[in-house]
Formats: sequence, structure tokens, C-alpha cells
Amino acid sequence: MEVVRHAKELQHRADELRAAGRRVALVPTMGALHEGHLELVREARRKADVVWVSIFVNPTQFGPNEDLTSYPRTFEEDCSACTWEGVDLVFAPNPEEFYPEGCQTWVEVSELSQPLCGATRPTHFRGVSTIVPKLFLAAKPHIAVFGEKDFQQLAIIRRLTRDLCFDVEIIGVPTVRESDGVALSSRNKWLDGKRRPQATALLHALDAAELAVRAGVKEVFQLDEIVAKELAMAKDAQVDYAEFRDPETLEPILHELNGPVLLALAVFFPVPGDKGPDRVRLIDNRVLPAGAARIPRNTKSNTRSTNR
Amino acid sequence: MEVVRHAKELQHRADELRAAGRRVALVPTMGALHEGHLELVREARRKADVVWVSIFVNPTQFGPNEDLTSYPRTFEEDCSACTWEGVDLVFAPNPEEFYPEGCQTWVEVSELSQPLCGATRPTHFRGVSTIVPKLFLAAKPHIAVFGEKDFQQLAIIRRLTRDLCFDVEIIGVPTVRESDGVALSSRNKWLDGKRRPQATALLHALDAAELAVRAGVKEVFQLDEIVAKELAMAKDAQVDYAEFRDPETLEPILHELNGPVLLALAVFFPVPGDKGPDRVRLIDNRVLPAGAARIPRNTKSNTRSTNR
Repeated sequence: MEVVRHAKELQHRADELRAAGRRVALVPTMGALHEGHLELVREARRKADVVWVSIFVNPTQFGPNEDLTSYPRTFEEDCSACTWEGVDLVFAPNPEEFYPEGCQTWVEVSELSQPLCGATRPTHFRGVSTIVPKLFLAAKPHIAVFGEKDFQQLAIIRRLTRDLCFDVEIIGVPTVRESDGVALSSRNKWLDGKRRPQATALLHALDAAELAVRAGVKEVFQLDEIVAKELAMAKDAQVDYAEFRDPETLEPILHELNGPVLLALAVFFPVPGDKGPDRVRLIDNRVLPAGAARIPRNTKSNTRSTNR
Repeated sequence: MEVVRHAKELQHRADELRAAGRRVALVPTMGALHEGHLELVREARRKADVVWVSIFVNPTQFGPNEDLTSYPRTFEEDCSACTWEGVDLVFAPNPEEFYPEGCQTWVEVSELSQPLCGATRPTHFRGVSTIVPKLFLAAKPHIAVFGEKDFQQLAIIRRLTRDLCFDVEIIGVPTVRESDGVALSSRNKWLDGKRRPQATALLHALDAAELAVRAGVKEVFQLDEIVAKELAMAKDAQVDYAEFRDPETLEPILHELNGPVLLALAVFFPVPGDKGPDRVRLIDNRVLPAGAARIPRNTKSNTRSTNR
């Protein structure tokens, strides 16, 4: 398996492959590859002839007080994993090439970048929506594969791909989980023995909300209570957000569900010791189904939800 | 000559041409083609096997009080001119395709978009730097050709092309002028018989500044006076800006020249009657040479400029 460092070289290879009628899939990553990333690679392999993985810890998607310096860098192991999975090429650009001297071009996806993670990390998605076009333009892939764990990121990438006329098909892959249901993340490694079990609260909250929706609960305030109760089981967790949103526009659903809805969660856990960041932020999400039709109550009712 | 309306179709053709090893040049325009545009087409023809002209009056580069509605639209004539010049294809996208429902992705080139025309037209360059990537992604050209008349626009496009890793070579073509030296512009048509002759003041100002620089003048305040005097000859002109700037970064040169310098001019002229805009804004520019070496004065001097 090869490692390519320069965009120009990658573009040249992309042109040759495209000319030969071969489909290229790109899996953009920041390295620290885990089973979740490898699932993206396998999906890429199913959909394309050639699989490229990019490994680039993108500085502009980290805020000033975030974990850029402590973000795990495991390039050798990542390359081994890629070789094992049959990846054809790893693209590991030099930061100076992706952010050359005087670099000042930003791609922004305005509305979708504001809520949820964007509220806590104000410049994060500007970094994401700027680096993804660079990766697409360097690799010229037919398809690009991203995890659904980063749901908002995926929505933003779908949007910019359409808005800018990128000739790239975006594929989302379901979240891969540990055996206890915690979503895989390179940041899980910072959880100590006391907090790691508490991280299951996110999945329990998603499960409880889905159960309620399937049972016919449509009022968001009721679902909020169910979610809050589950998250409260994680004693050390500080909830960043737990919100019901439109899965495409990410607009808030405040009162009553009337279709599939995204439940998006983010919590902070403290990280003891001084070897890593002060705290770690975990996210998880699920698109809940439209819900079971409610059995009409056999009484007069003026609630708007009946029979919806 | 063909007219293509959909990005997908153009991308398909671009892929085929690239696979066949043919070089594609794109000439992006807003239509209302004049000899200046046709010079871009000829330069494209010299550099590539296939020449595509895009015609799209981009709404996002017009401000709320600007001339979007009155901007000349001459599609039939433009196509005839393209046919005559041997253009292979005109790309005339539907606005709904370039700005689909929910479109919210913007490309911004931060510093270069601020001064000069950016100061007077605060959202103009955001529109330019957003539409150009769409055109590049739709046409996938090897080269793209722009006029040097829009010097700041060209600097911004060069910058975003490099910053975003576009595999496109940007070519600048010198300004084409009327016989009296006025730079060609689709907006010249709004000048009446009284103002049209006054428009030559821009070129006279550029000439006078160049003459002074070649004669050894390096102090910007002196050059400012020379330029102001020439522009004042146009009795009805309202000067928007007349500035000396670094040709690459567009940073202001305030005191003394020490290398090639951009002189950029913009003036408004009133437009009588009610058939067009209220006023028209003309721009012109020149990169002045580094200047003649000054003959050292035969006196003690501590000025920094001596012998530079």
C-alpha cells in the first residue's frame, strides 16, 4: 500500500483511474483509525474499484481550547490497518500544502453549521466544510464515505456537495459500537474506568426515546424528560445538548413530532490526570422513526396530536 | 455550437474529454460579450483543445441596490459571437441548479475581498468566489481564462484556486480597450455622449502614474496627486477609489514604492434617464513597474529610498 503526500500526484492518479473507467472511493479521516473507520473502508470497497483513505488532522476544525495537540496520532498503526483492509493508497498531505502561506479561503455552510455541535464549537464546521472540498479536489473521487455518528457533519457535507456541484456521491455508514453499545470514537480512550461505563447512557437515551416514539409518544417535552432521565444516570456527565431536530435541515422540533426526527446528543466527561485533555466530549444520535399511529382515545380531545 | 444547461451533462463531457487526453479551457462570463471577452476566448483557444464559455448572470455577486435587473442580457448575440469565434460549447446553467432550494454554501476569500471594490460592494466577491468553484466543478477545465481588467477578482480566483487545491490553471489576459483607451465593459453602454469622453480619464491617470514612476517618483503622496489631477479632468466622475496596492496581497502601499505596484481605479458616472441604473461604475488598473533607480543625490541623505 502506498502513501502519497502531494495533491498534484494524487490528482494525476485520479485522472488516470477515471480515464480507465475505474471508480475511486475516498474515505476522509483524521487517523487514529478504529473499527468504525474500517467499516467505512469496507463500504467503500463494496461501492468502488479503488479505495483511498486520507489521514489528515485538520487544524482548522479544532477550536483554540480544544484537543488538537492531544488528538491521537497513530500513523504507523493506521497504515497497517489500511494495508490489512486492502486500501489501495493512503493520502497524507503536508499541512503546508493544504494551508499554504497566505491561505485565506473558507467554505461555509451557513445554517446547518449553527446548532448542536456548532453552538459549542463555533469554528468547527467551517474547518470541516473547508477541508472536505480540498480533499475532494485533491482526490477527485467518484464516491466519498463518512460515518453517520457525525450526523451534523454528514448533513453539512451532503449540502456543500450539492450546493457547489461536486461530482461526488456521498455515502453515510451507520455508527459502529463497542459491545456495550458505546459509539466508537478515538476520544473514548480518555475515559477512565469510572466514566467509561457511564458512557452507555447515550445509547440508553437513544433506545428509550425510540421505544417511546414507537409506543406513540409525540410530544417533545415528554421525550425530553425520557432522554434527560437516561442521561442523568451518567453521574459525571455534563450534557452539552440533547435535541430533537429535522434530519435534513437540522431545524429544531419543539412541540410535536410529525415525521422522522433526529435525536442528537452530546455530553462532556471529565478526564482526570494531565496527560490528555481536561474533558472529553462524546456524541451520538439516531433518526427516530415517524412513530406508531396513536390509538384514538375514546373521549373528546382537542390535542393536535390525535391520529396524526 | 452547442448549448448545455445542466452541470451533470457538462461533467460527463468533461470526463470524456479528459479521458481522451484533450485539454479543456473554460471562459466564465456573465454574457453581454464584447471584444474583451472574445480576446479571452482566443487566448483559451491558443492554450487548449476545447473551448467552453459559460454564460451566467450570477445573482449573488450583485448587491441589493446594484444593477442585476438592468444588467444586459444578450444570449442570442452572445451565442452567435461564440459560434463565430469557434467556441465548442456554451454552458448556460439554470439558476435553480446553481442555487438549489436550501442552498447555503459560501466560499469566501477573506483578506483579498475586503479592500477596493470589496469596500464599496461588500458581498460582491463572496458571490464571485462562490460561483467560480461551482463553474470549475461543473466544467472540470484544465485551464480557466479571466480578464486582468477585474484585477481584484483575478487575484481572488488565483488565491481560491491555490487554497482549495483546484487542478485548474488560471490565465489572466490584458485589458482590451476602445480606440480612445477606455477599457471595454458591458457597462460602458450606459455612458451618454457627455460622459463617454470623460471615461478616458482613467487611462490618462494610469499613464500619468506610470510615467512618473518610470521617471523615478516613489512617494505615494506625489503619485496620488498626479492621479487625482487626471481624474479631476472628468467633471462628472465621482471617485470611488484610486489606490496603490501590493499586486499579490492587495495590501496598501502608503508611503514609498519599493517594487511593482498595482494602481487600481474606480469611478462612478451618473446615468441620465430612467432606462438603466442611476449611475455606472467603471474600473481600470495597471501594475506599474518597479520604477527607475533614483540617481543618488550628491548630498548627505537619510531617506530610505536612496539607491533602492
